[in-house]
Amino acid sequence: MIWGFIMAKDKKVEQITDMDVDFAQWFTDVVVKAELIDYSGIKGFYIMRPYGYSIWENIQSVLDRKFKELGHENVSMPVLIPESLLQKEKDHVEGFAPEVAWVTYGGSEKLPERLCVRPTSETLFCDHWQHVVHSWRDLPKLYNQWCSVLRWEKTTRPFLRGREFLWQEGHTLHRTAEEAKAETEQMLEVYADLCINYLAMPVVRGRKTDKEKFAGAEATYTVECMMHDKKALQSGTSHYFGDGFARAFDIQFTDKDNTLKYPFQTSWGVSTRIIGGIIMTHGDNSGLVLPPKIAPVQVVVIPVATHKEGVLEAAQKLTDELKAAGIRVKLDDSDQSPGWKYAQHEMRGVPLRLELGPRDIEAGVCVAAKRTGGDKITLSLDNVAESVKSLLDQVHNELYEKAERNLRENTFDAHSVEEARELAEKGGFVRMMWCGDEACEIKMKEQAGVTSRCIPFEQEHIGDVCPVCGKPAKHMVVWGIAY
Amino acid sequence: MIWGFIMAKDKKVEQITDMDVDFAQWFTDVVVKAELIDYSGIKGFYIMRPYGYSIWENIQSVLDRKFKELGHENVSMPVLIPESLLQKEKDHVEGFAPEVAWVTYGGSEKLPERLCVRPTSETLFCDHWQHVVHSWRDLPKLYNQWCSVLRWEKTTRPFLRGREFLWQEGHTLHRTAEEAKAETEQMLEVYADLCINYLAMPVVRGRKTDKEKFAGAEATYTVECMMHDKKALQSGTSHYFGDGFARAFDIQFTDKDNTLKYPFQTSWGVSTRIIGGIIMTHGDNSGLVLPPKIAPVQVVVIPVATHKEGVLEAAQKLTDELKAAGIRVKLDDSDQSPGWKYAQHEMRGVPLRLELGPRDIEAGVCVAAKRTGGDKITLSLDNVAESVKSLLDQVHNELYEKAERNLRENTFDAHSVEEARELAEKGGFVRMMWCGDEACEIKMKEQAGVTSRCIPFEQEHIGDVCPVCGKPAKHMVVWGIAY
Repeated sequence: MIWGFIMAKDKKVEQITDMDVDFAQWFTDVVVKAELIDYSGIKGFYIMRPYGYSIWENIQSVLDRKFKELGHENVSMPVLIPESLLQKEKDHVEGFAPEVAWVTYGGSEKLPERLCVRPTSETLFCDHWQHVVHSWRDLPKLYNQWCSVLRWEKTTRPFLRGREFLWQEGHTLHRTAEEAKAETEQMLEVYADLCINYLAMPVVRGRKTDKEKFAGAEATYTVECMMHDKKALQSGTSHYFGDGFARAFDIQFTDKDNTLKYPFQTSWGVSTRIIGGIIMTHGDNSGLVLPPKIAPVQVVVIPVATHKEGVLEAAQKLTDELKAAGIRVKLDDSDQSPGWKYAQHEMRGVPLRLELGPRDIEAGVCVAAKRTGGDKITLSLDNVAESVKSLLDQVHNELYEKAERNLRENTFDAHSVEEARELAEKGGFVRMMWCGDEACEIKMKEQAGVTSRCIPFEQEHIGDVCPVCGKPAKHMVVWGIAY
Repeated sequence: MIWGFIMAKDKKVEQITDMDVDFAQWFTDVVVKAELIDYSGIKGFYIMRPYGYSIWENIQSVLDRKFKELGHENVSMPVLIPESLLQKEKDHVEGFAPEVAWVTYGGSEKLPERLCVRPTSETLFCDHWQHVVHSWRDLPKLYNQWCSVLRWEKTTRPFLRGREFLWQEGHTLHRTAEEAKAETEQMLEVYADLCINYLAMPVVRGRKTDKEKFAGAEATYTVECMMHDKKALQSGTSHYFGDGFARAFDIQFTDKDNTLKYPFQTSWGVSTRIIGGIIMTHGDNSGLVLPPKIAPVQVVVIPVATHKEGVLEAAQKLTDELKAAGIRVKLDDSDQSPGWKYAQHEMRGVPLRLELGPRDIEAGVCVAAKRTGGDKITLSLDNVAESVKSLLDQVHNELYEKAERNLRENTFDAHSVEEARELAEKGGFVRMMWCGDEACEIKMKEQAGVTSRCIPFEQEHIGDVCPVCGKPAKHMVVWGIAY
């Protein structure tokens, strides 16, 4: 065992960059070495390998079930948008047109109008609704789409900023503003639940400032997470559009009172970016650490001394038993050494490892090692599935607590721009009062190097004035450096 | 009841074209009126509305489970392919380059190389494998991707021929040719199983002629189905590539004997086209008829005389009971008349309707009407879920038998080109011997108006010579007019 442990250590040291030396390089090493990603021949386009894609499938499964429970239906919209359609909503086109990919030829024929590969699909949903929504009986429309979108970014990184990324985009249309607003809030809460209860990522819920909101939205709500390096990652957003798009696309319905009205709209999305968030929240110098609820492999069973009679059979039996209990388990019976396997599955972030050797079998036990560390634990092979489930819950809780401590201990209050700058340089979130003027927000960027992450729902009165301009403060804002 | 029935009839007559008068228009009417599809602003790009997309989700669920049981893993490849990558395999690029959509601008910047929106992803998988496959230990790679692809078709129709369509594309890489060939055959059988046991569509399994095979394949296998109008629909294909792509992309691995070898490759796909097949196989003049296994709504419960006390409650109770038994059931408690509802859910192809009125409730029964017709059936409310499951199986079997009869009664043997022409004009599949020369295949198209659908696995010796040229016959071929 000692030998295996040392081998594992050696392997790690030579394989990935120390996260405290170069966090960006550590991240790149992890996504490649854990086989989440391969680079394609085009900048900013990534191949999601089976292990990476499987994380996404698990996230999809959680969200898709929740969306449907709340009455949403999935649809499929075209991948291309005519330029004229994209231009119908003024703010929206200004936000997206500079960063879309344009299709100009179909086969050998030059197209009469350029078509962009969708960067988001508000315009497509509106165009469709304009065809099919006529009466209050046709509302609400509660739609969602799982797809990929393209945004021609200048700097790119796997998961965090791709020219292509996968996401879900929810789009809903409602009779009243109140109903649409409630939907916006409800879906933000679905995202918060995903982060907290499935990904073990604590969140700050809040509203974006006008400067940071989605192109075309009246209000954008966000869940912001703090990464290991104390930077912020926007992990899910929910937008309230009012009736702006409905007016631009001439969507009207006959209401119960027999008058024509414009409906109210929302959209909300979570993307594969959140996998980047998982990596940067929980990962360590041995590689990936996956929250058990979305880990493709929750438990790896490693037989020790496989040449001894009965070891492989016992390992198979243990694996089958866990599988039957609904646990995602993998038996590693390859011909590599146990030490190599330990390092390999640590790199891949498997939450729990079970070791099983001849003496364990004789004693009717196996030995569990949590990816979150701590002493190894001897588990009775009787009722092992229950013990394993309980250890997986424990791993989830330990991950959440560690991340929550990181957020708590690195959130500071500032009462001057200078103080904000010093705190931001140290790393972390800065809470500071704000007057609501965009000018002060721009100054914060210029002078303190931070952007507004959100106006948290949970407000605290930490001062009377905006420290930037001295005018009366309207909100407490969380500032930080964002991915 | 009589009144409801008449209303339903009236509604149908005014709503959709008679399928025996104009089958193409009937098809278009059904996809629109059953709310499967809406037209987008771009020719050949369709919106799959919730009801249509839900059929696809049910098909996905069947296939995805089966793929995974057989050891396949899902991945995500880029949506764009550099022109130089597409050109690496000669036959492949000749087949696809004329019909792809080209991205030439990213934002305002003209791209140094054109990128096509993927028409299929063989080249992307090969490029990735070239990076990651080094040893026999890395094989097999058993991958699948769910995505949309683009092909710039001239004539387009919903489901049957879109410039964009959704599909799954399986791509696998193997140590030996035998293993790859076995995979090709296995996956064709998965498709046959989908058609027969889930979609109630009988199939002819066979191999495509060289003229009809996939661009770049050594062999293409197909399941062909006969539609109501006796035309053929290719419903799933599986391709064996040999090592042609591996050589073109320089994918090599060190085998167990320590020598460098080229691996062998397959791909296989089913697309949303198969939904067109379901519609054209089972639909009738009342609209869509959905096979129960993939119907989004398997059972609709319609309360009759809802103003009477206890009716809505009893209908809700019945609905809940069926739902608890795992049946996809919908209660239609809207304020429309029962007759309108009957017609509406017939149009949408719901396999089973349950009517529940005050007298039924008193008698402890409900009344079942199968979408496939026949007398209404009185079901006891005790054990109703079991009765309903049995009726759903019955609907499946009735659909399969009807389609199988259509295939059997409209498949004919021909012994001359003239006879083949006459039979084809009458409608149906024509079985005829063939020498194996492409020249004769072209003559069959010119003189009999048919193309080769496949060389069936189940061969019969119906003659010694190829009736086109008189030379010795090699195979029996099924000929027909295809979608």
